[in-house]
Amino acid sequence: MQDLLDAIVSDAMASDDRGKVADYIPELSRVNPNQFGICVATVSGEVYAAGDADTPFSIQSVSKVFALALALGKVGDQLWHRVGREPSGLAFNSLLLLEHENGIPRNPFINAGALVTADTYLADSSPREALGQMVRFVQAACEFEDIRINQNVAQSEIATANRNFALAHYLASFGNLRNSTDKVLGTYCHQCAIDMSCRQLALAGRLLLEGPGMPRLISRERRRRINALMMTCGHYDGSGDFAFRVGLPGKSGVGGGILVIAPGRASIAVWSPGLNQYGNSKLGTEAMETFARKTGWSVFG
Amino acid sequence: MQDLLDAIVSDAMASDDRGKVADYIPELSRVNPNQFGICVATVSGEVYAAGDADTPFSIQSVSKVFALALALGKVGDQLWHRVGREPSGLAFNSLLLLEHENGIPRNPFINAGALVTADTYLADSSPREALGQMVRFVQAACEFEDIRINQNVAQSEIATANRNFALAHYLASFGNLRNSTDKVLGTYCHQCAIDMSCRQLALAGRLLLEGPGMPRLISRERRRRINALMMTCGHYDGSGDFAFRVGLPGKSGVGGGILVIAPGRASIAVWSPGLNQYGNSKLGTEAMETFARKTGWSVFG
Amino acid sequence: MQDLLDAIVSDAMASDDRGKVADYIPELSRVNPNQFGICVATVSGEVYAAGDADTPFSIQSVSKVFALALALGKVGDQLWHRVGREPSGLAFNSLLLLEHENGIPRNPFINAGALVTADTYLADSSPREALGQMVRFVQAACEFEDIRINQNVAQSEIATANRNFALAHYLASFGNLRNSTDKVLGTYCHQCAIDMSCRQLALAGRLLLEGPGMPRLISRERRRRINALMMTCGHYDGSGDFAFRVGLPGKSGVGGGILVIAPGRASIAVWSPGLNQYGNSKLGTEAMETFARKTGWSVFG
Amino acid sequence: MQDLLDAIVSDAMASDDRGKVADYIPELSRVNPNQFGICVATVSGEVYAAGDADTPFSIQSVSKVFALALALGKVGDQLWHRVGREPSGLAFNSLLLLEHENGIPRNPFINAGALVTADTYLADSSPREALGQMVRFVQAACEFEDIRINQNVAQSEIATANRNFALAHYLASFGNLRNSTDKVLGTYCHQCAIDMSCRQLALAGRLLLEGPGMPRLISRERRRRINALMMTCGHYDGSGDFAFRVGLPGKSGVGGGILVIAPGRASIAVWSPGLNQYGNSKLGTEAMETFARKTGWSVFG
Repeated sequence: MQDLLDAIVSDAMASDDRGKVADYIPELSRVNPNQFGICVATVSGEVYAAGDADTPFSIQSVSKVFALALALGKVGDQLWHRVGREPSGLAFNSLLLLEHENGIPRNPFINAGALVTADTYLADSSPREALGQMVRFVQAACEFEDIRINQNVAQSEIATANRNFALAHYLASFGNLRNSTDKVLGTYCHQCAIDMSCRQLALAGRLLLEGPGMPRLISRERRRRINALMMTCGHYDGSGDFAFRVGLPGKSGVGGGILVIAPGRASIAVWSPGLNQYGNSKLGTEAMETFARKTGWSVFG
Repeated sequence: MQDLLDAIVSDAMASDDRGKVADYIPELSRVNPNQFGICVATVSGEVYAAGDADTPFSIQSVSKVFALALALGKVGDQLWHRVGREPSGLAFNSLLLLEHENGIPRNPFINAGALVTADTYLADSSPREALGQMVRFVQAACEFEDIRINQNVAQSEIATANRNFALAHYLASFGNLRNSTDKVLGTYCHQCAIDMSCRQLALAGRLLLEGPGMPRLISRERRRRINALMMTCGHYDGSGDFAFRVGLPGKSGVGGGILVIAPGRASIAVWSPGLNQYGNSKLGTEAMETFARKTGWSVFG
Repeated sequence: MQDLLDAIVSDAMASDDRGKVADYIPELSRVNPNQFGICVATVSGEVYAAGDADTPFSIQSVSKVFALALALGKVGDQLWHRVGREPSGLAFNSLLLLEHENGIPRNPFINAGALVTADTYLADSSPREALGQMVRFVQAACEFEDIRINQNVAQSEIATANRNFALAHYLASFGNLRNSTDKVLGTYCHQCAIDMSCRQLALAGRLLLEGPGMPRLISRERRRRINALMMTCGHYDGSGDFAFRVGLPGKSGVGGGILVIAPGRASIAVWSPGLNQYGNSKLGTEAMETFARKTGWSVFG
Repeated sequence: MQDLLDAIVSDAMASDDRGKVADYIPELSRVNPNQFGICVATVSGEVYAAGDADTPFSIQSVSKVFALALALGKVGDQLWHRVGREPSGLAFNSLLLLEHENGIPRNPFINAGALVTADTYLADSSPREALGQMVRFVQAACEFEDIRINQNVAQSEIATANRNFALAHYLASFGNLRNSTDKVLGTYCHQCAIDMSCRQLALAGRLLLEGPGMPRLISRERRRRINALMMTCGHYDGSGDFAFRVGLPGKSGVGGGILVIAPGRASIAVWSPGLNQYGNSKLGTEAMETFARKTGWSVFG
């Protein structure tokens, strides 16, 4: 395993075409593209890491997995009255389907659905309290103390969040937000601005694994369902392609991180800031494809 | 396992709400809705059956799985230049996305993609030859001799295939059909009109399983990829929901059949003619949800 | 003419089916639906009025005509780089086409286009200054001193403007707003909250007529072009129907007012608060159809 | 007037950028792009012509005006149960809105609506009979004997009509065609293949004018309504722009012809084969804009 990760890092470091760092959030656009980290945390307790596996990065949409788990913990299946479970077939910030579907977002991993999820875990608490719960939830999963929200990224994100503000107001026009749009947006942008390293993310991802030493934060049935959503909706309009090429559920973020779950085996985090055409980490996706092929890990037999 | 299947059949037989039999193809609308069959063929060679497991029914879109395997066997990954691998988020016969995507259907399991797939396995042969290959391919997978195309269903289908003719002409207008629309439509409608029982279908489904006694018709990598497509795109705009609720790759047809693969364990076929809102078997989907919960089989851990 | 207007008022007053008063703006929903007024101001200087022709009502989207004239007066044809001139084929507050068209609204009469128009006449001035110009422009056209913005309606509108906030943020995400979304929305909602009577509106509409005694606020070419836009886009997705049935350019508002121009003849304002399925005044539309048939006025020969 | 037409022809002949001749119908793609004709037939009986005004060309979609008049003559306002009257906001051969609107085309001038119109005037007769009526109707309007359907163009059109076949089958799938798709398509393609010169077209267009010497083929009310549809829908997704720039109702065809009606004044036909981005004659549109500006003719005052 360690050899495999080292080989993947070598390949990645030698790559000419690293994709394009997200430029719509100024704070993220300044990240050095020549970074690459990977970490594997197995159900039997081993942890393998290579490259920049201990460098914190902005987890961005990967946070939607933790947010979903937290929201489901608070309201259970009632969430599904307000968010769907279908792939959208469209870009992550599209408003197209919302209009046809009366303000019910397709799934919790597109931005509209993540806003409803944030509104749900916010409930009646303040953003500060809700974000505190979120950070403690992630800390409990990865067993690291020093998980932080990057305030610069959060502010940079709020300042450039016109599309997300549009989505939030649109949801509100259908009555699908309980809290004010400002409060939901603020919470959402801070949630996305959590900084984690590959090591921390891989360890946190273990909450989606079944096994004796794994964190027991959510039920087995809920774990499976979150994994299912990661499989069908985890990579926006590149979800089908990721399932086809990698064969494992995963969730990506525009910070360049991807969390991948190999049920019964391991939680894997990979990170490289440059993105492909779908807004998913280019080298990260390629690394996961190699990883899945070499290990033979696939949920599809 | 036999007890489980018997219990599922009992529940299904007692059900008040059996969904609605497809009525757009006259020949199918005459099917008795009070039928229900299920069959499980395991990797270790056991076969369990219950209910109307030996009654042949029209497999309809389940045939798209075999068609995809056949087409990939002929042209390999070149197919993916002409068909995508993403969930469409829309109904099975929608033309909406085709216009935006220059005639490249989203995936091989929506009708437009299945037409391109049929055009691909047709290649330069006659419909008769191509359909002969298709039937022999299915026969080889399930090891039954008497797989037949139901000519009445095929004719009924062609006579009512206005939407599919529209799709075919539309694809042709983008240059994404090599054969004439009539030839492709004729082949496609006959492919969908294959009659199989649950037992035959479950046995044929073993071509998507890895194991010593399983049919060796396609490579392991291709098997995984077809399973991945069944997971993300196998139930049209209900694919996300099926993945969420059942957790196994499956492909449904408007004849009321569903083929489900539990990698490493078994191939399962279930059949009941009444459909739910997505056009998938209502009792079949419910039965698979119960089956997955009781067996604990899920690819998601 | 006076007899015709009296007969139209009688018919309207006797109507059983008056449509439905707009209910999404609380302040508007309280308007008494049993009101109906009409006024005709001819190019030769006569003014005919009947019914509640002197009752002020909220002109709402009719204000978009004056806003367009004002904006064109400020920046001329440069406006057309930021707004299109095509009917949208969709509801007045739809976001659908914006996504396909990179934030360029279809025309200045759908809400998105009206927001860009408001942003344009705002230019670098304060909302107070810009709205002052707007009110003075309307006063100059109708030669009435007491045109007022209804602050209660404006506040009610801002408080319920989630869909418009969504549109504004969406436009901003494409860089198609120069001022802040709050400033543009505030200006737009106040502009829509102008109160005018049918008499005032008919007189103001004369700025779109050619004739010796008509107000000379805009050039003949611009008048024609605004009339053309009213014809093709003045009634949202009911524009084609209005052109077909009435044959004169017009612009409606959800307050129940419609301004109609009969080039070479007269400016007509009609008002009744109940709306039809397209969000246009039901009795007002019917009255204009009768009016056009009885007078024989039509731009189409 | 003659001087104006001569000047327009001179300008057109000197133009560098003549647009692009339609290339999807082989027979049309061979037309010499360096041709330009214009003809004006006034209500008082004068006829002015310049350039290639007597060269026959394929009128294509201009025929939809005559087809609409013929169909309305047969079934009256019943047609409007099967076709709408709204601009579509989309390209002439788009299928997008059909799906949302259950097979009711937006208006009779987009291809889908023209197919329903052809199905309507076909009624129970044979294509030959119906096309005979059509040609005689046009002959009666223009008072020329030698109006012919160009069989080469018709055949070329049928051979390349995949998109139209798709539309026809799609309409049929919603039950909005009474005749077979082959019959409707055949009739439609022949109707579009009528050859006329500018002189013939301008004279035929007089059926949409009111005046003592004008052909009396349809009622005044119907004339107005057809003119209204030409104004709002006559140039596909360039209709708003034509209304804005020219200010007169018109109908274009991909053969490069445009028929324009100046109510109370004249019928104008212009022709130049090169098309602009909307599929309307480039020089023809520009010529009409000049013509309208110089004559001051506009329905908008």
